[in-house]
Amino acid sequence: MARTAAVKSALARDLEATLGPDGVVWRPEDILAYEYDGSIDRGLPAAIAFPRDAGQVASAIQIARRHGLPVVPRGAGTGLSGGAIASEGGVVVALTRMTRILEVDAANAIAVVEPGVVNLDLSLAVARHGLRYAPDPSSQKACTLGGNVAENAGGPHCLAYGVTTDHVLGMEVVLADGAVVWFGGRTRGRTGYDLPGVVVGSEGTLGIITKIIVRLQRLPEAVRTLVAVFREMDQASAAVSAIIARGIIPAALEMMDRVAIEAVEPAVHAGYPPEAGAVLLIEVEGLREEAASEADEVEGVCRELGAVEVRGAESPADRERLWAGRKGAIGALGRLAPNYYLVDGVVPRTRLVEVLRRVGEIGQRHGVRIANVFHAGDGNLHPCMLFDERVPGDTERVVAAGAEIMRLCVDVGGALTGEHGVGLEKRDYMPWAFSDADMEAMRKLKAAFVSDGGELFNPDKIFPSPKGCREIPRPSAEGQRGALGPGDFV
Amino acid sequence: MARTAAVKSALARDLEATLGPDGVVWRPEDILAYEYDGSIDRGLPAAIAFPRDAGQVASAIQIARRHGLPVVPRGAGTGLSGGAIASEGGVVVALTRMTRILEVDAANAIAVVEPGVVNLDLSLAVARHGLRYAPDPSSQKACTLGGNVAENAGGPHCLAYGVTTDHVLGMEVVLADGAVVWFGGRTRGRTGYDLPGVVVGSEGTLGIITKIIVRLQRLPEAVRTLVAVFREMDQASAAVSAIIARGIIPAALEMMDRVAIEAVEPAVHAGYPPEAGAVLLIEVEGLREEAASEADEVEGVCRELGAVEVRGAESPADRERLWAGRKGAIGALGRLAPNYYLVDGVVPRTRLVEVLRRVGEIGQRHGVRIANVFHAGDGNLHPCMLFDERVPGDTERVVAAGAEIMRLCVDVGGALTGEHGVGLEKRDYMPWAFSDADMEAMRKLKAAFVSDGGELFNPDKIFPSPKGCREIPRPSAEGQRGALGPGDFV
Repeated sequence: MARTAAVKSALARDLEATLGPDGVVWRPEDILAYEYDGSIDRGLPAAIAFPRDAGQVASAIQIARRHGLPVVPRGAGTGLSGGAIASEGGVVVALTRMTRILEVDAANAIAVVEPGVVNLDLSLAVARHGLRYAPDPSSQKACTLGGNVAENAGGPHCLAYGVTTDHVLGMEVVLADGAVVWFGGRTRGRTGYDLPGVVVGSEGTLGIITKIIVRLQRLPEAVRTLVAVFREMDQASAAVSAIIARGIIPAALEMMDRVAIEAVEPAVHAGYPPEAGAVLLIEVEGLREEAASEADEVEGVCRELGAVEVRGAESPADRERLWAGRKGAIGALGRLAPNYYLVDGVVPRTRLVEVLRRVGEIGQRHGVRIANVFHAGDGNLHPCMLFDERVPGDTERVVAAGAEIMRLCVDVGGALTGEHGVGLEKRDYMPWAFSDADMEAMRKLKAAFVSDGGELFNPDKIFPSPKGCREIPRPSAEGQRGALGPGDFV
Repeated sequence: MARTAAVKSALARDLEATLGPDGVVWRPEDILAYEYDGSIDRGLPAAIAFPRDAGQVASAIQIARRHGLPVVPRGAGTGLSGGAIASEGGVVVALTRMTRILEVDAANAIAVVEPGVVNLDLSLAVARHGLRYAPDPSSQKACTLGGNVAENAGGPHCLAYGVTTDHVLGMEVVLADGAVVWFGGRTRGRTGYDLPGVVVGSEGTLGIITKIIVRLQRLPEAVRTLVAVFREMDQASAAVSAIIARGIIPAALEMMDRVAIEAVEPAVHAGYPPEAGAVLLIEVEGLREEAASEADEVEGVCRELGAVEVRGAESPADRERLWAGRKGAIGALGRLAPNYYLVDGVVPRTRLVEVLRRVGEIGQRHGVRIANVFHAGDGNLHPCMLFDERVPGDTERVVAAGAEIMRLCVDVGGALTGEHGVGLEKRDYMPWAFSDADMEAMRKLKAAFVSDGGELFNPDKIFPSPKGCREIPRPSAEGQRGALGPGDFV
């Protein structure tokens, strides 16, 4: 204890000398808020640095290196795979004070932002130009663009428009040696190696992003939002396949199951009938005639496949309410249990019915209640397991069930993550999806960026632990999400 | 000469021992056909290997290493930046016998192919499932998917759907040490570092691709193809901006200038009026009502901005003819001059009018006639310079003009390549766009893949030459494109 305090103090002094007293948090009672992110993992950093530009980021990195400590970049802490957890202590570099939108080039539909800009704030800022930033994680009111880039975040509207990597053109990055480099540029042309593509989704392990050039998208002339209610999950899954098979790629195509509906309806009053077995939330957009014709076709498909009710949002406020139900669903699960553990996996769309059934069986076998709220259109599952971490064995049970679900995703030809990253959570599952030679290629890529820095940036993320099995996180007194306020994630 | 022959012979014997006599080409008269690709650069390999699987690719790599020779991967040789040129000799590994479509999973809209599959053949093969492969370089009847992946190829329909990297999910790659690895998978979820993204566009410098998993796209219900004729290039450029500003992203939005029209009309009889100053070829697609309403809106915009004629394709045959004009334009330039040098650069769409004017000035100053045939919708220019390599000084002139155009693209905030790669052609321009630290990051990335192989794979591509200025290629007796047959590229 004394040793930790001493290290902290010397480190804090050094950081303060560069970042100023208001640029560093190091008191034990203050750093507790940074022990968590949106995952069930945790780890206590030695100090938090709040740089205001790339130079200060480079300084923070150099100070951490001098003290032999790792650096963990952090945005809003809404990540769900433990990507912002200081699992080996060290310096958390929080980008939350770098919140400027540096440039909006409306005519060319790009923006240059700092990493701490909140996702939704960018769309709000460019709306007056008739533009938006397309990727919209459910945490978009809180999560930052820097975190989005690090985790290659998705969101409901990524079905039609692709995830973060499809919307990032370039970035300024501070590397392990303090060099400040630009990867990519202002156009879609990628010259030489796709270094921006390497950094997107690298989960803070290669460097710290200090500026981002993003593509913006013109707001559609018209948006039509539909809710389709089914008695059975299988019917809803069949409708998902049928819509896509018609050649319609909705802007969003989301599914909620019975457990999720039960939680969300009393909380949000979205108008989902509580007896429903599954609800699809479908959004189509484009020119007015286009959106109308697609909405008609979607409605027809849903009715053919047994929807007991299909209704369209009647006003912007009504649309907001329907979306609040979807985006607030995970938060609302707090009404059913004190904790949840949400996993993120991808399966081929054609295996949805089968996989959802087997997810249900896994839950039953482990005695874990599971809610499903997910991006059905791209087969991106989010089984959300309800538990109470105060009950002995409960955490172990959900982690074991989660591992089985992940294994299932890989076994049916899917992937370990659709939009949340690997992080701490799934590092030990990587060998299910990748051979030794595959992992070796990733290791070499990492070494190219941090050749002399070893585990400098965000240790324990992505790569399997030496012992190869997941450690169950130990809850601290604060309880899950103590640092986060009301959760509306995914 | 005697020394070269001796090396060749030992190499050929070793290659034949593994690949069989029909798997190797080494006679001087035969290898001449591999001195060229679609660029103005050239280089004579020592032998050509035609592997039939990843194992044979690994063997060819090992044999080349044993002989201390570089390896140059090659598809159909249609590339325009010299990516397939054996500039330092060595073994060309031609993937043109690995032409199997290994799997079509129509329900999940993916295909697994070998690298030698011709781009258009894949779309033809999956058409009966109502699917297509979206990226469509103008060379799509000849170019291979392996080459497309290596160069991150584009095409007219990439405006709406993105370039190759947006359509590749995973790949099998043979690395420098002979290891056969899988990067990525069958879903859009990217787990860990985006290694498929690294390989796409790496121009054969990191390894050799032996299988590719691509996304397929559902064929639209309806396609509407329009030709809009303008007196002036500026009017056509303004129409491009205005269409995009209305929130319409056409599937394709292509422009041809007066010189290109003059060449193409007598060759293809596409119906472009010869007195036109610029022609836009615009394609919109989707559900029937959607395509119709967008076509109407596009027509309105073009007329407002001064189009003297707007007409829609009246039948599939008519549509084919209009596209033949566009896709055959570069080949048709052979009517105007014996050689052409086509450069590929990107500029912000808002700078199109200004940049096209300055491209014209550069041509005048150098006494070079320039045709413009390009992807206007994404600001991807293709100034095509006409020359006669037999005229002393002509080649030097077009190379100098090309360099100025490239510099201009970078100076206005654009990029050195949109879809053709850097290759030999633009390696020495890289410092205009990238700092030393940026280039160092690319060097380290390359070293991560070929740490012990040095310049094993495709030397002289992407990275600037030590002397830092472009060598003018020396024409050989065969003349440009001797190996290629009738050119229809870009």
